[in-house]
Amino acid sequence: MAPSLEIVDTAADDIVVKSIAANGNGSALDRADQHDKVLKVFRSFISDLCQQFNGGHPGSAMGMAAIGVALYKYVMKFSPRNDNYFNRDRFVLSNGHACLWQYLFMHLVGVKSMTLDQLKSYHSSLTDSICPGHPEIENEGVEVTTGPLGQGVANAVGLAVASKHLAATYNKPGLELVDNMTFCMIGDACLQEGVGMEAVSLAGHWKLNNLCIMYDNNSVTCDGTADVANSEDMNGKMRATGWNVIDILDGDSNIAAIVSALTQARTSDKPTFINIRTTIGFGSAKAGDAKTHGAALGVDDVANLKKISGLNPDEHFAIPQDVYDFFSDVGPRGQQHEAQWAEKIQKYTQEYPEEAAEFQLRVEGKFPSDWAKYIPAKENLPTEPTATRKSAGIVGNVLGENIKNFLIGTADLTPSCNVAYPNKVDFQSPELETACGLNGNYSGRYLHYGIREHAMCAISNGLAAFNKGTFLPVTSSFFMFYLYAAPAVRMAALQGLQQIHIATHDSIGTGEDGPTHQPIALPALYRAMPNTLYIRPCDSEEVAGAFIAAINATETPTIISLSRQTLTQYPQYSSREGVAKGAYVFYEAVDRFDVTLIGVGSEMGFTMQTKDILESEYGIKARVVSFPCQRLFEQQSRDYKRSVLKPGAGRPTVVIEAYAANGWERYADASISMRRFGKSLPSKAAYEFFGFVPSAMAPKIKDLVEEVRENGIQCLRGDFRDLSGYLGVGFEH
Amino acid sequence: MAPSLEIVDTAADDIVVKSIAANGNGSALDRADQHDKVLKVFRSFISDLCQQFNGGHPGSAMGMAAIGVALYKYVMKFSPRNDNYFNRDRFVLSNGHACLWQYLFMHLVGVKSMTLDQLKSYHSSLTDSICPGHPEIENEGVEVTTGPLGQGVANAVGLAVASKHLAATYNKPGLELVDNMTFCMIGDACLQEGVGMEAVSLAGHWKLNNLCIMYDNNSVTCDGTADVANSEDMNGKMRATGWNVIDILDGDSNIAAIVSALTQARTSDKPTFINIRTTIGFGSAKAGDAKTHGAALGVDDVANLKKISGLNPDEHFAIPQDVYDFFSDVGPRGQQHEAQWAEKIQKYTQEYPEEAAEFQLRVEGKFPSDWAKYIPAKENLPTEPTATRKSAGIVGNVLGENIKNFLIGTADLTPSCNVAYPNKVDFQSPELETACGLNGNYSGRYLHYGIREHAMCAISNGLAAFNKGTFLPVTSSFFMFYLYAAPAVRMAALQGLQQIHIATHDSIGTGEDGPTHQPIALPALYRAMPNTLYIRPCDSEEVAGAFIAAINATETPTIISLSRQTLTQYPQYSSREGVAKGAYVFYEAVDRFDVTLIGVGSEMGFTMQTKDILESEYGIKARVVSFPCQRLFEQQSRDYKRSVLKPGAGRPTVVIEAYAANGWERYADASISMRRFGKSLPSKAAYEFFGFVPSAMAPKIKDLVEEVRENGIQCLRGDFRDLSGYLGVGFEH
Repeated sequence: MAPSLEIVDTAADDIVVKSIAANGNGSALDRADQHDKVLKVFRSFISDLCQQFNGGHPGSAMGMAAIGVALYKYVMKFSPRNDNYFNRDRFVLSNGHACLWQYLFMHLVGVKSMTLDQLKSYHSSLTDSICPGHPEIENEGVEVTTGPLGQGVANAVGLAVASKHLAATYNKPGLELVDNMTFCMIGDACLQEGVGMEAVSLAGHWKLNNLCIMYDNNSVTCDGTADVANSEDMNGKMRATGWNVIDILDGDSNIAAIVSALTQARTSDKPTFINIRTTIGFGSAKAGDAKTHGAALGVDDVANLKKISGLNPDEHFAIPQDVYDFFSDVGPRGQQHEAQWAEKIQKYTQEYPEEAAEFQLRVEGKFPSDWAKYIPAKENLPTEPTATRKSAGIVGNVLGENIKNFLIGTADLTPSCNVAYPNKVDFQSPELETACGLNGNYSGRYLHYGIREHAMCAISNGLAAFNKGTFLPVTSSFFMFYLYAAPAVRMAALQGLQQIHIATHDSIGTGEDGPTHQPIALPALYRAMPNTLYIRPCDSEEVAGAFIAAINATETPTIISLSRQTLTQYPQYSSREGVAKGAYVFYEAVDRFDVTLIGVGSEMGFTMQTKDILESEYGIKARVVSFPCQRLFEQQSRDYKRSVLKPGAGRPTVVIEAYAANGWERYADASISMRRFGKSLPSKAAYEFFGFVPSAMAPKIKDLVEEVRENGIQCLRGDFRDLSGYLGVGFEH
Repeated sequence: MAPSLEIVDTAADDIVVKSIAANGNGSALDRADQHDKVLKVFRSFISDLCQQFNGGHPGSAMGMAAIGVALYKYVMKFSPRNDNYFNRDRFVLSNGHACLWQYLFMHLVGVKSMTLDQLKSYHSSLTDSICPGHPEIENEGVEVTTGPLGQGVANAVGLAVASKHLAATYNKPGLELVDNMTFCMIGDACLQEGVGMEAVSLAGHWKLNNLCIMYDNNSVTCDGTADVANSEDMNGKMRATGWNVIDILDGDSNIAAIVSALTQARTSDKPTFINIRTTIGFGSAKAGDAKTHGAALGVDDVANLKKISGLNPDEHFAIPQDVYDFFSDVGPRGQQHEAQWAEKIQKYTQEYPEEAAEFQLRVEGKFPSDWAKYIPAKENLPTEPTATRKSAGIVGNVLGENIKNFLIGTADLTPSCNVAYPNKVDFQSPELETACGLNGNYSGRYLHYGIREHAMCAISNGLAAFNKGTFLPVTSSFFMFYLYAAPAVRMAALQGLQQIHIATHDSIGTGEDGPTHQPIALPALYRAMPNTLYIRPCDSEEVAGAFIAAINATETPTIISLSRQTLTQYPQYSSREGVAKGAYVFYEAVDRFDVTLIGVGSEMGFTMQTKDILESEYGIKARVVSFPCQRLFEQQSRDYKRSVLKPGAGRPTVVIEAYAANGWERYADASISMRRFGKSLPSKAAYEFFGFVPSAMAPKIKDLVEEVRENGIQCLRGDFRDLSGYLGVGFEH
């Protein structure tokens, strides 16, 4: 175990000298007085911002002031005037409610869009404010949107993986094109949330020494002292998880100590955890009190804070010129970083023209233009019954092998999800390769996330956010466990981050694993989630269509929902072009039709058989619509939609899917669906148990058709029918 | 830090003697030979069960054989013939895929329903099998349904909290009515999943010394060696989290060592973590290989396993009499435990008649019959604008204070969720109370879960499962974070466990916290989830109705969805009886009506104002339906449903809710809803931004009414209308 290095205040000045030098800034003054003033002005400004609309989160922003000075003034290598500088250190504010802290430092170091007026728009009704209640990726200088706690830590791990991978892939001796750090600011919550701890475990396992977590340890949460819910030896826990741990005893004012710790993080052989003791709401009369967390301090406290800070209580939003001056070297230093990097690129281009060309495409975030050639043509896809999870391997693994943008991962389901492409190399620490004889190093593109679905997807958000288009992360697990990962998938959709989630074992067809593993309601979540594609292909051709749609959706996460069990292939009917439209006519009845059947994913086989029985047994002509993706269908023209569903024809429409029917009412008059949780039975038996039997479904549909013939289609208005066969025990909805 | 106690094999016999004595069984033989035979028979039987249908999970079940003998034969205090024995030790198989292990031990110790035929029904098509692919609570001797990894650990923490709380509340010196242990079996996954680590942290914090985790450390997962995704010092991590750690070096055969460790766990001052090294698929030629995890071993391997075990390869499902004899003392010992407990109860009843009567009701799982008297009458509810989260405090906290069945918790949002009832006492270790001067001890009923929403709900499943009706767990957080907790809420619904989840800050009305905190798609999940009530009341009276519905739903989790912002109260229209029906006529138009408006939760105010404008500006008569719960409405008669929505009247229906419209198509022709994620703006401004403005909504509804007047209601068929005002940028669906 690494010893806990305690930095004591006496050494402060030297440390500042060292660290400033380390940051290419010659001057080596004792800046104690300057620091003191900057901190006081910063804290009073924060208190003003929250007071103006009597809201916001002042406490941690004030407590973290010294950390910010250390990071923004002395340590972080970035360019305030160019947030696209590729090799910049990444910063993630995982405790996003402290966003004012970030906004104000961005203003002080000269981020153009972050004006005084913008700062004052925090919590205002200004609709084009760049100072929302939590940092948002759309705004200059923000790497990822944070707010839901724990997500940011995992995003930071993803950002660190991204730069480790690029470094291992493209760096050459003396020409380190990518060597940036990722700094992540967290509060107590990020270490309590499961997703945070999952990500922390992986960072330790992967030995991500380019990652540094700064723990704002003010031992206060909403409920008061953090002791009410936590008694852990946090440093011990982090060490046991493979982290280098540094303690800072006085995080309220000892900028020097923080600078030194952050500087050491750059040279650590492990990820670094800096445990920084701070005081929430430092400077306020309520300092140390949970009350300062989520509410303005009050007019008197704000005035008093200024008075004892030697500032004018009647002045608001005041930033003296010498405080701006204090940060004035950050901008030029950023331009130096950019210039040095440009020089490196130039040398690299001369010495390694081929690699340079490829690297340039990665920097531009370009996906290879010829990717489509790797998607098998229809005639090369299997025609014998095939599980769509197997089809996904056939379609996706050629892409995975040939396109470096893909970073492909699994939550410990390599044998089940079929995303392991030929000749895959694992993303692992080379030390682990030596130790365990595993096939892996940092240039590997196959990620073993362990049984950590939530972190898998949250880390993927960091991969996608590193630089738009540089990576296209792929994850894989059973569809049911994308409920564990849902908060992270949602954050991808909110941020417009492209991802492909390979979700196998969907529907009750999963079989013996039983109701715990059979999704019923989950599709309703992803079909309702904005900017998310939930695609459920019915055979190999539609799987090809699903991958094409997912790659074309450059600002959207896509879930490809696949079967464990083998499915009949319909090369004569299925169409990748149809998938692109979300739904399409799969089988058109001749002359006339009496009913439209909607078939989805692994239930298409039952649908087609039911269609046949309806005709042979009852002379009822059914047309069949394949409906792999509601979201894509909603994006089509009204005319196209009506041409597929023919709502005006006065014929009923029945959807057949082994999920809750919720949402299908938009397209159908009746459903054969699931009204309760599933059951542990072999796949075929499970479908039978719940009435997904063509010979049982056909007569129910026949009755509906006859009722409509008699009473007209209007008899179904406001009366969505459940034609499911199963009526037995269990919790019905 | 506690030193790691290593138990070496030499001491084995003594330990068996000690432990057997400790379990009230006098004999003290060296049972090495017997143990050897039992283990061999057990493992070959498991291999037969998986081979018969060529599936299942043999590996861990075989590797954990010795652990099972230690637990079922020597340590666990339970009664095989009576799984309702109240003070039984609880057992949770968190690695539920190893269920055959539990099923077979239940058979060997004489659990009545677990016959040989039932065992053989594993993975069969038998629809009334009690041997599903994962253990299910409905079946004899199963405490909780497990399968989704990590959940079981949290359930076990809940079971341990339940018994700690009952002990602190009812036990008297020398009369320990409740002193049972909770044993939890886990694999690697449960320590990787975030929910597991969250629960483990809380168990350490609460010093739950009645909890023992047995870690089946076979260092193999689906992807091969666990080293591909984990490098933690697990023992160090558990110690840092406040656990007592014991190492078992030979978990494949050293029953004595395991017995000793389990016995020590009973007297520990902390929760105990036993790290047991085992070999997956022990006995098989593929022992130690991941291939034995999720597939049958193959006919040859099964035969070979029997041969080298000295068993007959041609005999299947064979259990020699002496193996049954070996376990024959477990049943009688269980009856002794029951008898001793009955005696205690008798003494207790004589000495403490009052407490005994109350305790008896808890044992019977009875909720106080007079609970309704604590729900305020309509006339005592606020009439001035009130946030429903505040109404929930007014209605719920009287219940919380007076009814001991309630264990009420929060994910660090005490100041926001208003579930802290008057004179609350926290559930805490008394040592913590002394150390931090906190108000708490084990008899406390207010739980600080920390920022751990997922564990909060998964632990609540354990509380509810301890003994049906003994507890009614309440949780609280922002609604958005019930997405983190969704996998646990789903497990409650699947198991029929009653709970009340107080979900505040719903809809975009949450305001400044922005899109990360504003739910859009989440209601679609909970409205589709079987056996789940998602209730969204519009004012204080409907909040009262929501609590009544939640308490009456004794086999169902209920989410009460509440506003952060203040809402107009409608005492003249709102009705708790209406909530019980899911939806009801809120305002009936006189003489005729032109349109039905559905108002939901915090959007009811806008709906009523829109109704007024429609009449005053356009002479359009609107009726208004309040629709707090889709699931409850679906349970009503067809006649009632039609009387509320009047689908036959040929008038359009418009729903007004600031969520994705998905699912409302069943009841409405059009919606004013959310097509994208929200925005960081003050509550009122956020609603305006997305077009929830009566003066803007009214004309759109007027146009729809006129279109229907002109073309008839059929013009809306298959053409669900989105009348939302917002058409700007952002990711539209």
